[in-house]
Amino acid sequence: MAVCPSSRFSPAISASPRRSDSTPSALLLRRHGIHAVSLRSFSGDRLRVKQRGMGPGSSGDMLGICCASSSPVVEKAPEEAGWKLPTIVDVDLGDRSYPIYIGCGLLNEPDLLQRHVHGKRVLVVTNTTVAPLYLDKVVKALTDGNPNVSVESVILPDGEQYKEMTTLMKVFDKAIESRLDRRCTFVALGGGVIGDMCGFAAASFLRGVNFIQIPTTLMAQVDSSVGGKTGINHPLGKNLIGAFYQPQCVLIDTDTLNTLPDRELASGIAEVIKYGLIRDAEFFEWQEKNMQALLARDPSALAYAIKRSCENKAEVVSLDEKEGGVRATLNLGHTFGHAIENGLGYGEWLHGEAVAAGTAMAVDMSRRLGWIDDSIVERVLSILQEARLPTTSPDAMTVEKFKAVMAVDKKVADGLLRLILLKGPLGNCVFTGDYDRNALDETLHAFCKC
Amino acid sequence: MAVCPSSRFSPAISASPRRSDSTPSALLLRRHGIHAVSLRSFSGDRLRVKQRGMGPGSSGDMLGICCASSSPVVEKAPEEAGWKLPTIVDVDLGDRSYPIYIGCGLLNEPDLLQRHVHGKRVLVVTNTTVAPLYLDKVVKALTDGNPNVSVESVILPDGEQYKEMTTLMKVFDKAIESRLDRRCTFVALGGGVIGDMCGFAAASFLRGVNFIQIPTTLMAQVDSSVGGKTGINHPLGKNLIGAFYQPQCVLIDTDTLNTLPDRELASGIAEVIKYGLIRDAEFFEWQEKNMQALLARDPSALAYAIKRSCENKAEVVSLDEKEGGVRATLNLGHTFGHAIENGLGYGEWLHGEAVAAGTAMAVDMSRRLGWIDDSIVERVLSILQEARLPTTSPDAMTVEKFKAVMAVDKKVADGLLRLILLKGPLGNCVFTGDYDRNALDETLHAFCKC
Repeated sequence: MAVCPSSRFSPAISASPRRSDSTPSALLLRRHGIHAVSLRSFSGDRLRVKQRGMGPGSSGDMLGICCASSSPVVEKAPEEAGWKLPTIVDVDLGDRSYPIYIGCGLLNEPDLLQRHVHGKRVLVVTNTTVAPLYLDKVVKALTDGNPNVSVESVILPDGEQYKEMTTLMKVFDKAIESRLDRRCTFVALGGGVIGDMCGFAAASFLRGVNFIQIPTTLMAQVDSSVGGKTGINHPLGKNLIGAFYQPQCVLIDTDTLNTLPDRELASGIAEVIKYGLIRDAEFFEWQEKNMQALLARDPSALAYAIKRSCENKAEVVSLDEKEGGVRATLNLGHTFGHAIENGLGYGEWLHGEAVAAGTAMAVDMSRRLGWIDDSIVERVLSILQEARLPTTSPDAMTVEKFKAVMAVDKKVADGLLRLILLKGPLGNCVFTGDYDRNALDETLHAFCKC
Repeated sequence: MAVCPSSRFSPAISASPRRSDSTPSALLLRRHGIHAVSLRSFSGDRLRVKQRGMGPGSSGDMLGICCASSSPVVEKAPEEAGWKLPTIVDVDLGDRSYPIYIGCGLLNEPDLLQRHVHGKRVLVVTNTTVAPLYLDKVVKALTDGNPNVSVESVILPDGEQYKEMTTLMKVFDKAIESRLDRRCTFVALGGGVIGDMCGFAAASFLRGVNFIQIPTTLMAQVDSSVGGKTGINHPLGKNLIGAFYQPQCVLIDTDTLNTLPDRELASGIAEVIKYGLIRDAEFFEWQEKNMQALLARDPSALAYAIKRSCENKAEVVSLDEKEGGVRATLNLGHTFGHAIENGLGYGEWLHGEAVAAGTAMAVDMSRRLGWIDDSIVERVLSILQEARLPTTSPDAMTVEKFKAVMAVDKKVADGLLRLILLKGPLGNCVFTGDYDRNALDETLHAFCKC
């Protein structure tokens, strides 16, 4: 079992202005005696994340990660109850705002989940791998002390190759056979595939019902469960059918990482590395120092990486919910990566593995354009390799395969493929269609045998 | 060929306050020299529609349906160009607002359509019945004088039984094979089935692209093309999978009604009658006097019925886009009607035929509850019969069939079925789950043989 994280990895707090906590989720939490504090500072045009923690400099306005006042909900003091209060990261989207709870043992806390359930009926969507591990626990968390709620579940086959329409229809079948109505709640229990499919099902069932994300892989915890992108794949491309649809909350119980295979863990780390590269150099440097701790599943290191990843993602999503601009930068390496996933057949490589190779390709192309120093290329390849992630394209991929899939990428606009590329010092990127096509060709040829 | 309608059916204008015309669509139209005026008055808590027309009392602030100033887009004067300026009804939904254009010959006006096309790529979604009649015309309207735009089309089989996932996938297949990107526009050319499917495809393709509605049936023109409800059926129920997704505009060329079969015309009239019953007694009385003109396809009568129906629908949708309350009243007769469509098999009865029988059932139940006078029941049955619409349930429907389908209706909340029922004087209704269950049982038994 993991030990709950200490504050070892939380740098001292900075004296940035306190973020407004008048969002619906913050108000709700305050009613329950839980306070979330986001500390941010602005540096030029760019919104930067500052770390949050219980440092010696904390004051009344800078409470650190979170703190509890006397609460009618949590009857025992948290320490006595055997769990820590969660870290909370808010996704600020007006009336679609919601909290991300991060902590160990959160699935043992019925109240946290139950306060976000709408109606009396719940459908848990999960898969054959996760169900034996956590389904009973989630059903217990949903129903403990709450006899009015009834829970149904649908268990889908596990794997990216099942993120498609036929499998999605099983969710609708179950919801309709169970006679769920508009006041029900869908719960996504699993990795990114389950979150994306359950979210799209929730967006489309009766034209939209509430849903909750309980991500159980590092990939889903640091990326796909946050921000409301939902959908399924089409035989010709990834995530081509879907919706922007926000959950009621994201509940990340870091204990679920105890059962995650090593390869899946590394896959999630690929997205963690991404945040450092596109907007948070300090976080990248932290990762360079702490990669071994992450791979060894040091709970404290993992919790910190998840929190800081969610903070980065939450800020980007708050600025650009529907990917009109800056949100696209979260797709560093993904255009090449999606082509690899599609070209190999979904499920051959894990998503993060394809993103890692795609990141290596994006970095290679950035260097060919003269936009970054060689030292950045070396640091990126080095950290990906240390994380045991691929930095080359699979043998089966050809230049033609890359081009065919990339032509239907969602970032094509009026026929022009836009890419996320690094430019300038570490932690800076651009989303642009204005680049030398030769550099793209050179990168594709450098990474493919034919 | 139809003759463009005169104002014979437009009652004199009332001196209600002018509606704000600062919506994006209104601003856009003003740039093109077209002014839309909506005149409304409030009566108690209830928003009422007032008729719009070029009456003798028109002043600068009360311009009637629409008028044109000198325009850089319309080069010839409208009369010379051989077409009338359209009537415009605005659907006021903040940044999702859009205009409904109503008029004869509008498909001969490339500008009207082209100003709402985003990007350079268009996908027209239509069916095997409508394509031979209007597809060429629409492609011409999209491309005339606009060589940068390329148009693809997908022709689906015609009928409610094809409003399902397998057929929907053909739209995605075509869009992806054609390498359409986020800056494309989908155009729905057809009746309600095409509009609902194309709208849901637009909502879901790449998580949402622009779309335009060109309804060619009376049913779609007076109801389903307006308001953003999109979706498909599930074997267990109608419209159970979908999205709220608004179009860029709705373009109603009343000339398309010239090719509509009589049975389809009557089906649309069922929804026209609905508006009178739920919120517009004056319109109902107009229908009682003009039903023969509608059935004889008097263009002026049809244009007036469409305009007033769209005004009613636009107001309700503006008040309650996502059917949290008042919008549900637009479903008078639909819960019973959906059960009939599902019980018989989609496509056996037309939607409006099922709604007509469902309306007769809702009215019967309202009378049993003592909520309306017998005289209203008689008037409803009389007008439905005059419109050659059914007022009894089909023989194949049993009480059990009704109950099974109604249990999965979208208006069930926490297990309680809410219905739209008439209550009080003509033109008033309620949406409620607070009714005597015996009245529902009595109605079902009265309309079923077993």
